[in-house]
Amino acid sequence: MLLNQIKGVNDIQDINPSDYQELAQEIRDFLIEKLSHTGGHLGSNLGAVELTMALHLSLNLPEDKLIWDVGHQSYTHKLLTGRKDGFDNLRKFGGMSGFPKRKESECDCFDTGHSSTSISAGLGLVKARDIQGGTNTVVSVIGDGSLTGGMAYEALNNAAKLETNFIIVLNDNNMSISENVGGMSKYLNNVRTADAYLNIKEGIYNTLKEMPRGEKVVKGIRKAKSSFKQLVVPGMLFEDMGITYLGPVDGHNIPAMLRVLQEAKRTRNAVMVHVITQKGKGFAPAERHPARFHGAEPFDIETGLPAKPRTTANYTDIFSTVMTKLGARDEKVVAITAAMLDGTGLKRFRNMYPERLFDVGIAEEHAVTFAAGLAAGGLKPVVAIYSSFLQRAYDQILHDVCMQKLPVVFAIDRAGLVGSDGETHQGVFDLSYLSSIPDMCIMAPKNKWELSDMMKFAISFGAPIAIRYPRGEAYAGLKEYRAPIEMGKSELLYAEGEVCLMALGSMVKVAEQVKQLLNEAGYKCSIINARFAKPIDLEAVEWAVRNHKLIVTMEENVASGGYGEKVRDAVDGFKSDGKVLQIAVPDRYVEHGSVEQLMQEIGMDADSIVDRIRKEMENAR
Amino acid sequence: MLLNQIKGVNDIQDINPSDYQELAQEIRDFLIEKLSHTGGHLGSNLGAVELTMALHLSLNLPEDKLIWDVGHQSYTHKLLTGRKDGFDNLRKFGGMSGFPKRKESECDCFDTGHSSTSISAGLGLVKARDIQGGTNTVVSVIGDGSLTGGMAYEALNNAAKLETNFIIVLNDNNMSISENVGGMSKYLNNVRTADAYLNIKEGIYNTLKEMPRGEKVVKGIRKAKSSFKQLVVPGMLFEDMGITYLGPVDGHNIPAMLRVLQEAKRTRNAVMVHVITQKGKGFAPAERHPARFHGAEPFDIETGLPAKPRTTANYTDIFSTVMTKLGARDEKVVAITAAMLDGTGLKRFRNMYPERLFDVGIAEEHAVTFAAGLAAGGLKPVVAIYSSFLQRAYDQILHDVCMQKLPVVFAIDRAGLVGSDGETHQGVFDLSYLSSIPDMCIMAPKNKWELSDMMKFAISFGAPIAIRYPRGEAYAGLKEYRAPIEMGKSELLYAEGEVCLMALGSMVKVAEQVKQLLNEAGYKCSIINARFAKPIDLEAVEWAVRNHKLIVTMEENVASGGYGEKVRDAVDGFKSDGKVLQIAVPDRYVEHGSVEQLMQEIGMDADSIVDRIRKEMENAR
Repeated sequence: MLLNQIKGVNDIQDINPSDYQELAQEIRDFLIEKLSHTGGHLGSNLGAVELTMALHLSLNLPEDKLIWDVGHQSYTHKLLTGRKDGFDNLRKFGGMSGFPKRKESECDCFDTGHSSTSISAGLGLVKARDIQGGTNTVVSVIGDGSLTGGMAYEALNNAAKLETNFIIVLNDNNMSISENVGGMSKYLNNVRTADAYLNIKEGIYNTLKEMPRGEKVVKGIRKAKSSFKQLVVPGMLFEDMGITYLGPVDGHNIPAMLRVLQEAKRTRNAVMVHVITQKGKGFAPAERHPARFHGAEPFDIETGLPAKPRTTANYTDIFSTVMTKLGARDEKVVAITAAMLDGTGLKRFRNMYPERLFDVGIAEEHAVTFAAGLAAGGLKPVVAIYSSFLQRAYDQILHDVCMQKLPVVFAIDRAGLVGSDGETHQGVFDLSYLSSIPDMCIMAPKNKWELSDMMKFAISFGAPIAIRYPRGEAYAGLKEYRAPIEMGKSELLYAEGEVCLMALGSMVKVAEQVKQLLNEAGYKCSIINARFAKPIDLEAVEWAVRNHKLIVTMEENVASGGYGEKVRDAVDGFKSDGKVLQIAVPDRYVEHGSVEQLMQEIGMDADSIVDRIRKEMENAR
Repeated sequence: MLLNQIKGVNDIQDINPSDYQELAQEIRDFLIEKLSHTGGHLGSNLGAVELTMALHLSLNLPEDKLIWDVGHQSYTHKLLTGRKDGFDNLRKFGGMSGFPKRKESECDCFDTGHSSTSISAGLGLVKARDIQGGTNTVVSVIGDGSLTGGMAYEALNNAAKLETNFIIVLNDNNMSISENVGGMSKYLNNVRTADAYLNIKEGIYNTLKEMPRGEKVVKGIRKAKSSFKQLVVPGMLFEDMGITYLGPVDGHNIPAMLRVLQEAKRTRNAVMVHVITQKGKGFAPAERHPARFHGAEPFDIETGLPAKPRTTANYTDIFSTVMTKLGARDEKVVAITAAMLDGTGLKRFRNMYPERLFDVGIAEEHAVTFAAGLAAGGLKPVVAIYSSFLQRAYDQILHDVCMQKLPVVFAIDRAGLVGSDGETHQGVFDLSYLSSIPDMCIMAPKNKWELSDMMKFAISFGAPIAIRYPRGEAYAGLKEYRAPIEMGKSELLYAEGEVCLMALGSMVKVAEQVKQLLNEAGYKCSIINARFAKPIDLEAVEWAVRNHKLIVTMEENVASGGYGEKVRDAVDGFKSDGKVLQIAVPDRYVEHGSVEQLMQEIGMDADSIVDRIRKEMENAR
């Protein structure tokens, strides 16, 4: 196998060019086989096999710098830098990350995970090179989806001023995760079908040359500070900004890419190399269902179907269902997604009410302020964005939604630990950043029915409100507890005394396990389902203080600015000597692994919590 | 006076067109006279007088919707909507805001303050109109400076899909606050000098018509899905994205603007009207020094000089000086500003080390990730961004800087209450959003010398670190206290017992006043200068707990996620019955006024704090 000859970085440069295609095939087979067991971002990686090979053939890593936007397409890069064995434990606890990691390899020069950062980071590396007199090449690889994010444009705007080399590879597969949207996408579409342009350019040149006054026309256009070439070749939009444009080039044709990359390296400014690739290339199910194979669970290679079909509903499904109901009931209900039509569960809403669903691209900032505009115009917008991506829109929530008290509902999926995507995707900050914002109200459901009830409450709340819920299976326990949602009110589940668990959202399920273990150990235990992280239920806190020796707050969020701190403040206000134990995600980044493993690792599983409670209770005695 | 005939919205429509110029002059005189007393954003408003008049003549407010990006250019709009009297108390406590406010007038349809939000908000209002079957016109007015912000591009990208009318007025004065930067700016510059294009277009048409095969050329180009007109007229970049482009038009010529706005209203998609204006138009000092008159203090009309020249240094000056020293000492020190070269004090650094200063435009997200790239490349970047604007880059700090532990120094000016700019600009959230981030370290200096010491500490810290300091005069007291900065260590200023004030940054000065008042009232009082908001000094907290009856935390930030909560957590950890009183900005937006008035209003002046402390101490007895 050719792949076995590649043991470390730059080994690919010893492969015979006539074997490139075979190597590409081996890489594809390897990735499909490995990912069928581990899961992972199959589609984007299959699309970038030849592109990655061409980059590794053109560059000298790690001296040259290669930055992968989002980074989920870096598997071939990992293979070509000696990390083949890592694929057995890809995205598993303690195993190889699914994203570039500086600590994993010196060939990973910048960690990524969120979209649209690579041009900014690359430009930083370029300036650091220039100031220190370096000569290395810097390449940022960005997808056309990531180009819908505003910070990519901010970076392009700055890259346009460069007078030294910086290569931006536009890996254009005409997809973000869902279909691509917007003016840039339309523009790129026109460029992709650029044969027409090229032929016409040729035709015009020839025609002009034959004309008696053709020279004059060409001169006239040049005088307008624009070359005739730029007027009719693709990439004008980039050239207009001052970025050299090369392409489009077939992203599955290695020799063609090597030629254009050679040309790109000679450019004395920022240069965009436009590479056309196909997501899922070489694996029929992934070619046919690119969204499904964006971040896939383990699957059957023959059929492409999930190895373990899901049998239970997750919170996304519940949200999906309730949105269609709310949409039917009230024509003012509209929904916004930032390129996550499938992931957020809004596809059904789109199918039923296409004119009331807005997919804005990977543009969380715009999504939120756009929602503010919709609300100011009298509609009832629901913005569905994952917890870690909503971080991008902190200022917009604070400045555009809450400052005007506009009735925007934030549906925050993937709140809490997300598992195998790791530290860039853990949704463990939203309670903190949202709690700091005046006039924000934050809820979290204990189970699937409560998510539904909370959505109904939120849509008629008439002011900014957020609902956070975790990735994965929706808890189907505690069905009998379904007291109506009341503003700022928690729900008392068990009143026994001694220890009072005040648990938020996903932690109610854990609290049930904790209670059982505590009861078995002879402790009495109450449980309050917090429901609201902001404002907190002061009456409930007072009741907890008066009737318990220990209050335990439980939240799947960092402690700073979270639910527990607010409870602690309130407890102090009741002048009791009541002790508060705060169970929260520790103040460090949590890596990848299964959610169960990670909860154990950070001491947030039932056993660890019970240990800490027993220690507190024994100390108190 | 014509201006007196305008008592409410749409009254301008009764003015005789031949009087427009006179009215414009009256508005200019009025603004110059009023702002010479109150201060305010003079330059941008003088530039937008005729544009605002043209918009009010073309629109029917409040049915039509007019959104002002940033909003500091909305003074003429306020004048034309019956708020003339408000200018006596412009930006004063209880007076008229310097920005659009929905609660001030029904003609203000969306509040603004931060840059680049208007197209997103406008698009929201457009969609709300369309879904509800409305027919009103929506206009977003955005400056070319705001167009360097990524979310404006995200919004344009979405606006490009529109099939109904949405007018985007590009108010192009070739300036943000400092000079404009980047590819878009270069592009607009080319467009501005577009006479060349227009003449050439004419010339080419004529030449082609005369040619024997000219028809063929035109047809060929049309086949390329692009019209010949688009190829040679300005605005191609926007047209490429799918946005109709009209202009450029002289923004001080009302009839010309009325014509183009008429045309814009007939368009069945998003249309950009490119208006060329001059910042400071009609007031010579402001035309000459646009940056100085961006947000001006009261000034002398004859000379344009500040009415009260500043005699004492503010924190920005201290930062400015220390940066030049650090730059001289270490060639790896680089600095980044987001269009705030003057405001952040980085102009001197730019003058001395132009190649190490990066003004990225109004692009905070890019600024931070770019800094991460510079740090990954071996440099020592200092990112200077105001507290309220850094909110835009929360995700980039968390995801790109801290997750990789990159040594980026954040110099956070305007942290705390900023005064007359009001709620959109108060810097009272940074401790919260930064504290939630793992591996972030946060400092705040008590006085001018400490800012200097902290900057030196930060630049050699080797990991992410932030220094926050307030707007205005740098405290010059406590000069004798200058213990070396040590990681995570506070500074004990007075050790007396009973009450312990643990004050952060700007609040140390207030703590001194509080101590004096408490001493006079017979209470003993210690003061700890916190220095670090994260990590907090646990030893100091323990000392405070052991030796005092009451601990008072003092910070110019909201309570949630701030310094006080961390101290409270720590106090609980020491199992004492020590009481903590948390002095922090309340959980609501704080409006405009002088900082002194606002501090009083929110109970954070020395007197209010002393009252609260005495109450606590009496209760405890």
